[in-house]
Amino acid sequence: MSNSFGRIFKITTFGESHGKAIGVIIDGCPSGVNLDEAFIQSELDRRKPGQSKITTQRKELDTFEIQSGVFEGKSTGTPISIVIHNKDQKSKDYDHIKSAYRPSHADYTYQEKYGIRDYRGGGRSSARETAARVAAGAIAKLVLNKLNISCQAYVSAVGNIELKANYNALDLSKTESNIVRCPDEALAETMIAEIDAVRKQGDTIGGIVDCVIQGVPVGLGEPVFGKLHAELGAAMLGINAVKGFEYGSGFDGTKMKGSEHNDLFFTEAGEVKTKTNYSGGIQGGISNGEDIYFRVGFKPVATIMKSQESIDQKGDSTDVTGRGRHDPCVVPRAVPIVEAMAALVIVDFYLLNKMYLT
Amino acid sequence: MSNSFGRIFKITTFGESHGKAIGVIIDGCPSGVNLDEAFIQSELDRRKPGQSKITTQRKELDTFEIQSGVFEGKSTGTPISIVIHNKDQKSKDYDHIKSAYRPSHADYTYQEKYGIRDYRGGGRSSARETAARVAAGAIAKLVLNKLNISCQAYVSAVGNIELKANYNALDLSKTESNIVRCPDEALAETMIAEIDAVRKQGDTIGGIVDCVIQGVPVGLGEPVFGKLHAELGAAMLGINAVKGFEYGSGFDGTKMKGSEHNDLFFTEAGEVKTKTNYSGGIQGGISNGEDIYFRVGFKPVATIMKSQESIDQKGDSTDVTGRGRHDPCVVPRAVPIVEAMAALVIVDFYLLNKMYLT
Amino acid sequence: MSNSFGRIFKITTFGESHGKAIGVIIDGCPSGVNLDEAFIQSELDRRKPGQSKITTQRKELDTFEIQSGVFEGKSTGTPISIVIHNKDQKSKDYDHIKSAYRPSHADYTYQEKYGIRDYRGGGRSSARETAARVAAGAIAKLVLNKLNISCQAYVSAVGNIELKANYNALDLSKTESNIVRCPDEALAETMIAEIDAVRKQGDTIGGIVDCVIQGVPVGLGEPVFGKLHAELGAAMLGINAVKGFEYGSGFDGTKMKGSEHNDLFFTEAGEVKTKTNYSGGIQGGISNGEDIYFRVGFKPVATIMKSQESIDQKGDSTDVTGRGRHDPCVVPRAVPIVEAMAALVIVDFYLLNKMYLT
Amino acid sequence: MSNSFGRIFKITTFGESHGKAIGVIIDGCPSGVNLDEAFIQSELDRRKPGQSKITTQRKELDTFEIQSGVFEGKSTGTPISIVIHNKDQKSKDYDHIKSAYRPSHADYTYQEKYGIRDYRGGGRSSARETAARVAAGAIAKLVLNKLNISCQAYVSAVGNIELKANYNALDLSKTESNIVRCPDEALAETMIAEIDAVRKQGDTIGGIVDCVIQGVPVGLGEPVFGKLHAELGAAMLGINAVKGFEYGSGFDGTKMKGSEHNDLFFTEAGEVKTKTNYSGGIQGGISNGEDIYFRVGFKPVATIMKSQESIDQKGDSTDVTGRGRHDPCVVPRAVPIVEAMAALVIVDFYLLNKMYLT
Repeated sequence: MSNSFGRIFKITTFGESHGKAIGVIIDGCPSGVNLDEAFIQSELDRRKPGQSKITTQRKELDTFEIQSGVFEGKSTGTPISIVIHNKDQKSKDYDHIKSAYRPSHADYTYQEKYGIRDYRGGGRSSARETAARVAAGAIAKLVLNKLNISCQAYVSAVGNIELKANYNALDLSKTESNIVRCPDEALAETMIAEIDAVRKQGDTIGGIVDCVIQGVPVGLGEPVFGKLHAELGAAMLGINAVKGFEYGSGFDGTKMKGSEHNDLFFTEAGEVKTKTNYSGGIQGGISNGEDIYFRVGFKPVATIMKSQESIDQKGDSTDVTGRGRHDPCVVPRAVPIVEAMAALVIVDFYLLNKMYLT
Repeated sequence: MSNSFGRIFKITTFGESHGKAIGVIIDGCPSGVNLDEAFIQSELDRRKPGQSKITTQRKELDTFEIQSGVFEGKSTGTPISIVIHNKDQKSKDYDHIKSAYRPSHADYTYQEKYGIRDYRGGGRSSARETAARVAAGAIAKLVLNKLNISCQAYVSAVGNIELKANYNALDLSKTESNIVRCPDEALAETMIAEIDAVRKQGDTIGGIVDCVIQGVPVGLGEPVFGKLHAELGAAMLGINAVKGFEYGSGFDGTKMKGSEHNDLFFTEAGEVKTKTNYSGGIQGGISNGEDIYFRVGFKPVATIMKSQESIDQKGDSTDVTGRGRHDPCVVPRAVPIVEAMAALVIVDFYLLNKMYLT
Repeated sequence: MSNSFGRIFKITTFGESHGKAIGVIIDGCPSGVNLDEAFIQSELDRRKPGQSKITTQRKELDTFEIQSGVFEGKSTGTPISIVIHNKDQKSKDYDHIKSAYRPSHADYTYQEKYGIRDYRGGGRSSARETAARVAAGAIAKLVLNKLNISCQAYVSAVGNIELKANYNALDLSKTESNIVRCPDEALAETMIAEIDAVRKQGDTIGGIVDCVIQGVPVGLGEPVFGKLHAELGAAMLGINAVKGFEYGSGFDGTKMKGSEHNDLFFTEAGEVKTKTNYSGGIQGGISNGEDIYFRVGFKPVATIMKSQESIDQKGDSTDVTGRGRHDPCVVPRAVPIVEAMAALVIVDFYLLNKMYLT
Repeated sequence: MSNSFGRIFKITTFGESHGKAIGVIIDGCPSGVNLDEAFIQSELDRRKPGQSKITTQRKELDTFEIQSGVFEGKSTGTPISIVIHNKDQKSKDYDHIKSAYRPSHADYTYQEKYGIRDYRGGGRSSARETAARVAAGAIAKLVLNKLNISCQAYVSAVGNIELKANYNALDLSKTESNIVRCPDEALAETMIAEIDAVRKQGDTIGGIVDCVIQGVPVGLGEPVFGKLHAELGAAMLGINAVKGFEYGSGFDGTKMKGSEHNDLFFTEAGEVKTKTNYSGGIQGGISNGEDIYFRVGFKPVATIMKSQESIDQKGDSTDVTGRGRHDPCVVPRAVPIVEAMAALVIVDFYLLNKMYLT
């Protein structure tokens, strides 16, 4: 259950970390979209393992194949199936957890829920599954491009190293200029050094990804249980390792007074705008035309290269030490995942909103 | 669209602030549940307006009627319809916003999305709708009671006044002993004074509600897009005025190292436990048997008794000053709403998880 | 579960035959629709009990109240809640089946499935629930009227008395001119006499309702599992007492050869048409612009005024004789129900199809 | 949209007749099921093209690969992805319909709905897609086998050649003993001769498939819109070329009186049974423990080897003559498809019904 996401532009993903393949079916993509394969690959490349010294060294090219739903390069309105074959599994790296539970991983909960688990690389609970989302998100972006809607994410914190500036004080075109994906290049260097230091300790560190969505028309989002920010929140909280989500003023907004927090309306060149944007572009769950922005908090990766106390399937004490190839910090690779999920939400609500057209 | 919530235990709400009635249909409640009407009313009473000096003075008794799905006091497995008739509408209080948009309300977005809006009391966008959720949540709690699962929320911050202690250092039985619903009675007094002061200024203030769910069995939650915390997040973000959600270590967890953050497993009297609980009772999106806890951030109420610049439907400048009866701070009344939504999520996943039984 | 129908224009019904009320929430009705209450009532009147000598004599006016989703007479895009209070329950008529199972009713299956049942009038399994569908269907028809789409049903058979003519050889404006709702007035008299004769025997009889939908644009229906005729079929098979559904050439088409059955395309005044219409207006699950027509078979009502062998809840033998007020034949009152369900399907697919607009 | 089927045991199919592959994701299969690949293949073999002289001569082995959701031969509870690569496409056979519409095919409706179509072999509208359903249905059958539930279909009519006997007067073990899949071997010969004669004429013929489901426990099916027979009907009407569905007494039941049609309850060895079974094993939409049986009517295949008048995309007159390899009658190959869809419905409702367990 629940391997699907979206109402109209609906994706269903499959696959395990060390299985034959991972992939996605997109059901509900409008017809006539140019399925630009180079673009889809470039998005997958931003997420793929082994892309830099601060990511896992697993080597997966993450090349993909579109198996259906395309004719002469364009979407036909039928399901688009995308498959990515796994190539560089080293399942032996996981023999030691065949019957032991890694702390703060999903080993124990999967075993208890299903009575069986594919322990190799975490099986279905591995973040490798997110490659399928990035592929689907790339197609969502292709639809949004035609509508002049953009989704841009970037790393705003690694541990205690925080980017204080708001997105509109940054040059987001620089996000991809460094391996940590922070648009402040000086701070990026500090972040990279921190991740590297943590990695050398055999440890890991958390971080924060910010995202801004621009060009969204007024009216996307559904009351009461389909509020735009609630869906964005669910999308982000569904990404591996995410512990928190806030949009607009977020938790800081809880300390403000209404007279400070309210976004005053005015008109400029016939267009309705707000003087401030604590609402984060969403009012009453519906987009108001201003920029939508939000923050996503990621915990430190659970796999560390240190010995930790744990138990095995029988309940006996054991020690677990991380092996294999792992990320010391997920946020650099999380940037395209956050964008992909954001794009999927926006496309879906855009299509859903068409029912109100007359 | 999207006025429904849940997969198996599914609710659909209806109604506007100043319409004839609000209500809910619960489809999927198991049969044989004692529908304790006194308990349902007591939950509605915790949310109802006019309950204390720090809430809106609108007088609604929020008495309800069960119209279906019950036979000789027990649920029959068919839809349970609950209706609450509106009594104390003062729609004249809203004449001034017939064509003007209140800042940071949903007036503008509803008008743009639907081309029509019930301006009286905010119509469907009013938090009055949450009474329907509390009624449904009360029935969810009745199911959970039989399973020894509890959902307890409380106010942990009003503006800058913050409760620093964790839930397990508090006596949650004291939450209902004061009108702000903070289990630390001394701090509660400070919070009440703050809300009162803000109210006298004609202003409003934000705050935070914490919630803890205890007794949840291992195994609730669905990978990949139905993670238990993602659904809790969507449920909370769907409550009016919510700006942020975090569970377990939350945003603080982003600053931690893996070696600090990992929850080590051990066995006690044959039961699997973790030494710490930064995971917040959920690993890989699935409950692990530990306490589930999370925080929900609420912005300050948008309606203030001060004049604010805005525009009208034609786009012309105008001033809007709040009239009518409003809450200076939503968190005291949000406590039962947070509990209700939490209970709805847990019941739903409990029922969904039965498909794995052999 | 499963008291909802539709994807975009989605209804959820509630209520039992002898409970306080029955009703429906419509979620997803476009905004700006004039909710013509006189029309809605006229549709309910076509279905209501006691309307003629050949229907049950239970007296229900089936007056309704719209509780939400309307402002100044128009739909607002928020959920429309409609309630119909039960008035003329005579629950004593059902005391004899408190613990006995009526043959070919749902008494036994409900008791086994839920462990409890509201035996009064059949509870939720009563066709009284269809009043809620007719109310919702009336609003669907109001939307379709603006699109020049009509749904017209009529009785084409009562027992062995069959109307041989196809719909396009009939004057459908005469359907409402007689109490059995057959547009062939001479045959209508024979049908009425047959129902009356059966009623006097304390027996019941089955029949067939035909329906034609005209004005549907090309393109409604979704491959693969949302074929237009599959949804129509599910809608019709969900009506109480229905045993069969066929569209276009139906079961007769199974005896034909391809060369006879194929509908040849031609163009007339720039419009694509087919010479015959064995396809019933649907090809590959998608409307082709021709008339959509189908047939729905209803079994004889299970409640008869004769003694029948049966068992009670303990499994002991008992006799059951019908009491109370019942229809000797459902088809006259089924006509507006068939139309309502057809209208709900068409509106839903019309809205769904908008996602393909560019 | 709508390429998914089922609520809990949910399948999503993809693929076109002449694309790279077709396949299915099964989301919601319980864990621990032995995924017997030989059995899955044997089911695919029953449906595959080229299996006998009375089917299409397209040569597809329909070998499949399970890409996920399996570990050491057992289902893990995560999505099971199955892919079948297309091998024997002869797309040139379809060049003549690149811009022409074949009568009674989906060419015209797809073109109008989507503005683009994969004309090769009918693209997504081809019955080749049903191989994916048969693969998923095979896994559903593996689950049902453990519950002693069987789904058996057979050909009961080819054109005017009809099998008059009811299923319980037949030896269904003989269904697979002949290429037309009719358990009456003498009649089977007549049917085969008829199909062969029609094929030689370049024509096609319709037929009927009957199905019986045995061993279903009491209680499957959901009121009001999820009635078991309504879901079976939707499942069958979603199969290519189906024009009608009836269950139990079906359309014949419309001619009966209540006193004839009612199924009287009695108890045998503590088990509740009915003397007759006109209800077809379903009462009030819920299974009553008796055999479930239904009939599915298929139209003649639209592709014939004769010249037919039609139009092209511009609306100009043209002639279309079938080329390529086609079935003269679909019912022999429809038998496993009907069984697969029946199995999918029953498994889904079986899992859904678990929510009522205490």
